Amino acid sequence: MAKIAVLGYGTVGSGVVEVISTNSASIEKKAGEKIEVKSVLDLRDFPGDPIQEKIVHDIDVIIQDPEIEVVVEVMGGVEPAFTFVKKALEAGKSVCTSNKALVAAHGPQLLQIARERQLNFMFEASVGGGIPIIRPLNQSLTADEINQITGILNGTTNYILTKMSRDGSSYEDVLKEAQELGYAERDPEADVEGYDACRKIAILTSLAFGATVQFEEIRTEGITKITTEDFKYAEKLGCVIKLLASSRKKDGRVYAITAPFMLNKDHPLYNVNDVLNGIYINGNVIGDVMFFGAGAGKLPTASAVVADVVDCVKHKGKNVMTIWSMEKMELGDADDEERRFFVRVKGDASDLSAARDAFGQADPVTVDGLAGEFGFVTPKMTERAFAEAAGKISVINRIRIDDTVLQ
Amino acid sequence: MAKIAVLGYGTVGSGVVEVISTNSASIEKKAGEKIEVKSVLDLRDFPGDPIQEKIVHDIDVIIQDPEIEVVVEVMGGVEPAFTFVKKALEAGKSVCTSNKALVAAHGPQLLQIARERQLNFMFEASVGGGIPIIRPLNQSLTADEINQITGILNGTTNYILTKMSRDGSSYEDVLKEAQELGYAERDPEADVEGYDACRKIAILTSLAFGATVQFEEIRTEGITKITTEDFKYAEKLGCVIKLLASSRKKDGRVYAITAPFMLNKDHPLYNVNDVLNGIYINGNVIGDVMFFGAGAGKLPTASAVVADVVDCVKHKGKNVMTIWSMEKMELGDADDEERRFFVRVKGDASDLSAARDAFGQADPVTVDGLAGEFGFVTPKMTERAFAEAAGKISVINRIRIDDTVLQ
Repeated sequence: MAKIAVLGYGTVGSGVVEVISTNSASIEKKAGEKIEVKSVLDLRDFPGDPIQEKIVHDIDVIIQDPEIEVVVEVMGGVEPAFTFVKKALEAGKSVCTSNKALVAAHGPQLLQIARERQLNFMFEASVGGGIPIIRPLNQSLTADEINQITGILNGTTNYILTKMSRDGSSYEDVLKEAQELGYAERDPEADVEGYDACRKIAILTSLAFGATVQFEEIRTEGITKITTEDFKYAEKLGCVIKLLASSRKKDGRVYAITAPFMLNKDHPLYNVNDVLNGIYINGNVIGDVMFFGAGAGKLPTASAVVADVVDCVKHKGKNVMTIWSMEKMELGDADDEERRFFVRVKGDASDLSAARDAFGQADPVTVDGLAGEFGFVTPKMTERAFAEAAGKISVINRIRIDDTVLQ
Repeated sequence: MAKIAVLGYGTVGSGVVEVISTNSASIEKKAGEKIEVKSVLDLRDFPGDPIQEKIVHDIDVIIQDPEIEVVVEVMGGVEPAFTFVKKALEAGKSVCTSNKALVAAHGPQLLQIARERQLNFMFEASVGGGIPIIRPLNQSLTADEINQITGILNGTTNYILTKMSRDGSSYEDVLKEAQELGYAERDPEADVEGYDACRKIAILTSLAFGATVQFEEIRTEGITKITTEDFKYAEKLGCVIKLLASSRKKDGRVYAITAPFMLNKDHPLYNVNDVLNGIYINGNVIGDVMFFGAGAGKLPTASAVVADVVDCVKHKGKNVMTIWSMEKMELGDADDEERRFFVRVKGDASDLSAARDAFGQADPVTVDGLAGEFGFVTPKMTERAFAEAAGKISVINRIRIDDTVLQ
């Protein structure tokens, strides 16, 4: 019998308790012993709920309980999660978390503490919700040198963009609807500004390339400036617009970005819609591989957390190695990245001289009903060169084009 | 330094040697020590090839070499692979294999020997080529009770069906072309009759549900009876035709089948084309998850084999548990499975009386240029009821419809 504690009885925490109870027999078979939730830390009480008898309000009750072998941290946020997790590891307990903010901020330090003590710090649920991605990256793609990771890693923004694309609705209307459906937070900033996806690609990149990416250093743009007009042009080009979080290795350097991109129908992430997540990986041996599923939600996320608990129980006294070190990774300069851009400019499509002066070539794309403007796709150029050229014309909006995959 | 031996210097074997050499530094980092190929067993000599100095012709040289910790079996076929692998395990060496015939025939016995000796018997490459599927199923989806696994598990047949669909070519022509391109064997039976896919779904089903599926007991149909005319009807219905290998749990029983199916565009495997493989899994907690990538090929397969080697090196003296037991799984009666069928019959679409007498309802589907026949889709019915009804009319062909997923 392995006893565990759950820190936080919110959506994911109650999901973890539910999954361990619902699938008790099969989990016991897979872990090799029964797993039982002994304590749940929460500030609140839950009178009438069977969980009430397990509720504790003081983290030290859990830290000092020698029976508790694994601590599940599903509180969210960096503090007090970090302090609690550190204490738990130092007290000889393995930790599983769904908290990407914690992992992105302190992952390598917590991995190091776990490593020194032959414990485990696992965080499958921190990226891609239920989709197995951390463990495959860490344990399955070990024969490969990773060239690229590109993902749709945020379900909220993917829902918004999918809906805008399908219904022609405005960003504001769809955001409001997503909030009513519970797909978006009342304060949606972390999702819509790309911060959530940025932390997730920082985690995957650190795991894949072995040094710590500071998420603050990743160029990050959200979806708040994407309009219904942009989708009309995208449709004309046979593309969709997706918030991609991506990192790739080129000439020995890793480049990372989180931003909206246009993808055409041959892109492996083209069909990842609604709240689903998809992660595309290219390795130098395996080639292309893709993972796809529910990127969030109570039970899918709990599924990933509980799978980590099972793995911790199976690896008592043995650290499951990762190559993620505390060494800082110097990312390549985002301005050096080369790609094509879709640009919308003011003016008439019959007069391309300004666009051609600035970009060399510019075949116009027009959309019925949008007067006084047109669009065009630039040649492949660096972000730096793009910014310089764009300064010379009246740009309404510009969206990067991702055609670096499957080529 | 971990020394390994490779049994068989064919396509995959030479790929394994190549990957270990090419990615030597990153593999060392991920395994925690350097991995070196010490011996390669092959009947042939390779004069002039640097591998020649490592070639041995006698398995006992490898078995009796105390330095060799891991044996890679990539010879294919059940014998002598089984004898060699058993010997290696009994001599205290972990084994990694890409050999689905071996795993489907003797997997549980070899797992048991490894378990008893705190060794590992790993076979990631036996299903889905490079796609991580065995390890995710065994180590990531542990919180779930699996409801269903449905995969496109054979690249050769997927290539043939994709090509038939796109070009309107006949099965015979495309098979010939696939053979010329090296995508199909000169004797294509194992692929085109579905035997390969059947063994793979037997392996996944055994791993997911914990008892041994005898692959011979899985209802298996190949693609040899699929014609260009069938694809015309499929297109009319907005469907593609794919060879699916599938198992699902219903009322406590597992049902399995390998056969061509029609899928519509909402099916997660609809877009898995050419030689790619895709595997869809539904769990009671995680919901839907999909894995997708190169299902075969020298380097992708070698990538999976070497990842297993790395895992064996990381788990010295520790068996990575699976729930696959030697207990035999009694599959549910395939005749009890319920689904819809697409049926092509002789006759005129204006006279539906015979079809309606037999199937209750039948809305005709016709294709321009195909005279004297028509198609229709049956209501959902058991395979048994279908066979009985189909006996009453002049059936030209029938293809099952898969709409059990994502509902």
